[in-house]
Amino acid sequence: MNIDSIRFADRFNGISGSAIREIFKLLAVPGMISFAGGNPSPDSLPGEKVGEIANALLQEKGKILLQYGATEGYAPLKESLVSYLKDRFSFTCTAEEILPVTGSTQAMDLLCKALLNPGDKVVVESPTFLGNMQCLNLYQAHLIPVESDDDGINVDKLEEVFKTEHPKMLYIIPTFQNPTGRTLSLERRKRIAHLASEYGVVVAEDDPYRDLRYTGSELPSIKSFDEEGWVAFMGSFSKVISPGLRVGYLVAHPNILRKCTIGKQSSDVHTALVNQAVVDYYLRNDLLMPHVETIRNSYGEKADTMLQMLSKCGGVARYTKPEGGLFIFCELEEGQDATALLKKAVEKGVAYVPGTHFYANGGHHNTFRLNFSMPSVEQIKIGMEKLSDVFSR
Amino acid sequence: MNIDSIRFADRFNGISGSAIREIFKLLAVPGMISFAGGNPSPDSLPGEKVGEIANALLQEKGKILLQYGATEGYAPLKESLVSYLKDRFSFTCTAEEILPVTGSTQAMDLLCKALLNPGDKVVVESPTFLGNMQCLNLYQAHLIPVESDDDGINVDKLEEVFKTEHPKMLYIIPTFQNPTGRTLSLERRKRIAHLASEYGVVVAEDDPYRDLRYTGSELPSIKSFDEEGWVAFMGSFSKVISPGLRVGYLVAHPNILRKCTIGKQSSDVHTALVNQAVVDYYLRNDLLMPHVETIRNSYGEKADTMLQMLSKCGGVARYTKPEGGLFIFCELEEGQDATALLKKAVEKGVAYVPGTHFYANGGHHNTFRLNFSMPSVEQIKIGMEKLSDVFSR
Repeated sequence: MNIDSIRFADRFNGISGSAIREIFKLLAVPGMISFAGGNPSPDSLPGEKVGEIANALLQEKGKILLQYGATEGYAPLKESLVSYLKDRFSFTCTAEEILPVTGSTQAMDLLCKALLNPGDKVVVESPTFLGNMQCLNLYQAHLIPVESDDDGINVDKLEEVFKTEHPKMLYIIPTFQNPTGRTLSLERRKRIAHLASEYGVVVAEDDPYRDLRYTGSELPSIKSFDEEGWVAFMGSFSKVISPGLRVGYLVAHPNILRKCTIGKQSSDVHTALVNQAVVDYYLRNDLLMPHVETIRNSYGEKADTMLQMLSKCGGVARYTKPEGGLFIFCELEEGQDATALLKKAVEKGVAYVPGTHFYANGGHHNTFRLNFSMPSVEQIKIGMEKLSDVFSR
Repeated sequence: MNIDSIRFADRFNGISGSAIREIFKLLAVPGMISFAGGNPSPDSLPGEKVGEIANALLQEKGKILLQYGATEGYAPLKESLVSYLKDRFSFTCTAEEILPVTGSTQAMDLLCKALLNPGDKVVVESPTFLGNMQCLNLYQAHLIPVESDDDGINVDKLEEVFKTEHPKMLYIIPTFQNPTGRTLSLERRKRIAHLASEYGVVVAEDDPYRDLRYTGSELPSIKSFDEEGWVAFMGSFSKVISPGLRVGYLVAHPNILRKCTIGKQSSDVHTALVNQAVVDYYLRNDLLMPHVETIRNSYGEKADTMLQMLSKCGGVARYTKPEGGLFIFCELEEGQDATALLKKAVEKGVAYVPGTHFYANGGHHNTFRLNFSMPSVEQIKIGMEKLSDVFSR
């Protein structure tokens, strides 16, 4: 029988892979200045240090680190995370409430696996991170976008949706959001924790950028206001140590975490041990925050440069002013089409991501996302001038 | 709202986590001789070597290995796998047909994600690996067990099931099967490849033990007889380099692999790069087979010892005689209960896994699985004498 007669699972209906993967293929041209990615700067990746640490750990306890590990995670890392979360994310938890995962993408996948039946309603910010929207779509969730402003998601609208639609989950990136760079205000954080508990909605709080703050003051996590256990917190070391290592973590109520752990048993058994041990080494020996400090200095300068260039960029009507993270979200004049203009931009040697991909229902064709962590300050200056040319005409 | 009111996904109905995890908790007693696990021997784990390799790779190309990678996998590893698969598994494929995964457990998860709707029928060997049965259960598959004999699964029964039940998938471990240690005969391999294509059933061929042959001759993979692309091949380096690194691979027709790759995007984005690069280094520099040779010598002696001890073990009615792998499957006299006797065995300081857990529909309480890779030759002798005592009474 010809393989074309194969029937795939219904969860793939209407799913064609990430649209921006096609964009990234355009970027392989040498000399292209890309504001399209979400990658850390190569300068920020501590290859030599991680090499030394991994080697030392494997010489010392290779028999443990190369053996099968517990699905529940590498115990020393969980211990280190308890202190780190208390210091940096202002909430207290026990090691039993933490599940190390293979990048925080897996935390999202496991939460969906634990909670979602096809057709279950999930609230997302509008716009939001398209990777995790794809995850939700593969679980056949019914996405309900709720708009956001400079203080993050509109919580009055959110309560209305909780009340009338009875969603099972809210997916939210409270700090330096992807794609907007916006940060959810303190009041809204408190209110969301309260609403989650009032209406029985699981909050999937995705907070990978928090340590990358260049100005302003830190805010406590939504999880820190969680009393009943409805907030599940997803963290990552991809932006502050390395994405290639694939180490993140999920903090959740033991009832939720138990299901996620069973789900992980048949997803990948456990996260690679030496990778967990390297992250543990960074935390345990206080190497993380000094390293983050160097990244902050570099990215902060890049963010400033891009914001300055945006202030005089032709055709741009509005843009966000993030206090940290990796992204700025922009609007062209109404009626302009950022998807159509991308082709022109790429011809001129500069790229971005059209904003429409970050909206659950598409549209918003006049929006686009800029990344400032990957390019150099010089590339930002040159690239933004090129964009100004493209958009001015 | 109290968290106890949370509604989990239907896929968790009736799933309580792996039953043998409870057994493993019994084994933490110091001095326990365990025939229960499926772990490689600690002696076989090349901690020092992997440490040196990882360090050298990270010094040389840390900026690549710590950055985000392609979901499709690390290109040099895919290149090395093409040669390895041709040499060792007797089939030819291109790099585009290979997806490196986070342990072959993830290959199973992705195949299920790509193919299975709730209620879809999947044929499994009876008995079979309980980890992947749990994966199938989480995808709400309807499992159809087909019995096996010393030559592997009964292919006449299999054809009957293909004809009458129209399953979507066959999950099979053709070489040194878990839990039986049996190897599917050449004729049956050919016939299964043929039946898959005739009836349009995807074969998930799981072959992690192949390189661990202690006697007899190698057989070509089922995949090597696949003409239309219905056979998906899942491989692993967990038994021959390290399970802690979590590197496996899936080889499948591009149509199938495309869905698995999209599934992987939202599972964990990509498999950790330095882990892929370490495996590539082993393959590229011909380090794998000399390393496997040392493992074979050690495990072969252990297998011989256990088989010899079994030949005089009280109460044991029948047992398989594997030519490789990690396991021997045994039957007590009809009416004996290996689950009940496990408690007595553990009291005496020796453990195994009751066979009932490996059967899709349970039962078979007189069966049990023994592992010989973890214990030393001395422990095998002592442990088997203890078991003989327990079973003789």
